[in-house]
Amino acid sequence: MKKSKIDKRSRLIEAADKLVQQQGFNQTTLADIAQESKVPLGNVYYYFKTKDDIGHALIEHRTQCILHGQFSQWDKLSDPRKRILAAIKAVADNREILAQSGCPIGSLCQELHKEGGPLADKAAGMFSVLLEWLDAQFHLLGMGKASSDHALHLLAALQGASLLTNAFNDPTLMLREATRLKQWVTSL
Amino acid sequence: MKKSKIDKRSRLIEAADKLVQQQGFNQTTLADIAQESKVPLGNVYYYFKTKDDIGHALIEHRTQCILHGQFSQWDKLSDPRKRILAAIKAVADNREILAQSGCPIGSLCQELHKEGGPLADKAAGMFSVLLEWLDAQFHLLGMGKASSDHALHLLAALQGASLLTNAFNDPTLMLREATRLKQWVTSL
Repeated sequence: MKKSKIDKRSRLIEAADKLVQQQGFNQTTLADIAQESKVPLGNVYYYFKTKDDIGHALIEHRTQCILHGQFSQWDKLSDPRKRILAAIKAVADNREILAQSGCPIGSLCQELHKEGGPLADKAAGMFSVLLEWLDAQFHLLGMGKASSDHALHLLAALQGASLLTNAFNDPTLMLREATRLKQWVTSL
Repeated sequence: MKKSKIDKRSRLIEAADKLVQQQGFNQTTLADIAQESKVPLGNVYYYFKTKDDIGHALIEHRTQCILHGQFSQWDKLSDPRKRILAAIKAVADNREILAQSGCPIGSLCQELHKEGGPLADKAAGMFSVLLEWLDAQFHLLGMGKASSDHALHLLAALQGASLLTNAFNDPTLMLREATRLKQWVTSL
């Protein structure tokens, strides 16, 4: 694709990312995305025929952000314990945004699962990526067979704390749960 | 209100409860609720002028189910530890439904919070009721100042596990996290 086309496609995905996070996937129309991205609506159809198409691209984008943004940064730390603590800190540092609009992964999964279908499965793939990374870190920490349960526990606690932080619009809830989770990881 | 009016109102709320859980609040119309409850649409407006009105009634209904259904049952147990364990067991026993359509409280809170306003605050009140009850049980267990953090941790873990169970459509995830949480509560 030409550079200008890649730019427009990226702008559409970034606009979708922002709007879906603010108002949910169902409440976001292709027209909203066109307006937010300043790409003419007639032009949007060149890149994405349906809203589900942009949903797939959005999930792909968020997955790449996890893999190449967050993981590659945390993986620079030599100690798996420090990597897990860095992941918890990253969520806690994001608490103001979580209070405002919730976790972009959790809220999208929850919304899409009401309808089911391939888009919901693709969204759950974001959780798979997170669980696998956490599982690998706990294995490196010598947790053996308990690793996958530890990974599940940590992701569940962070997701649940995000949900409560969002419901009460109270960033201190995430901070309190993150403190407990850091103590737990340090104690292992 | 006459008995037949109370019946119709209850049928509308029960229909809303079912549909909102299956397809979300935004995706449910007053017409859907009329059809599901077999109350004529023109009649629905006698009871609920807007969808937000039925949203308020639905949250009120779910709150009453928590207070007079779940709590009153668990409160019959003399030991606060057994009460907390019963609450965890109730969520775990519900894992097949959670896998299919998620937690009715968590998913509604998450969806409504995207829009904000009084309905979102009212939905968060369901979490307040749960947190207060758990807090009281941990206090009775002698956890003192740690009680509110314990309550937050338990509710967050259950909510996060529900979310993952739903995203992967896998009831065993809830079972695994519930087992861990029961061990934790037993160890306190």
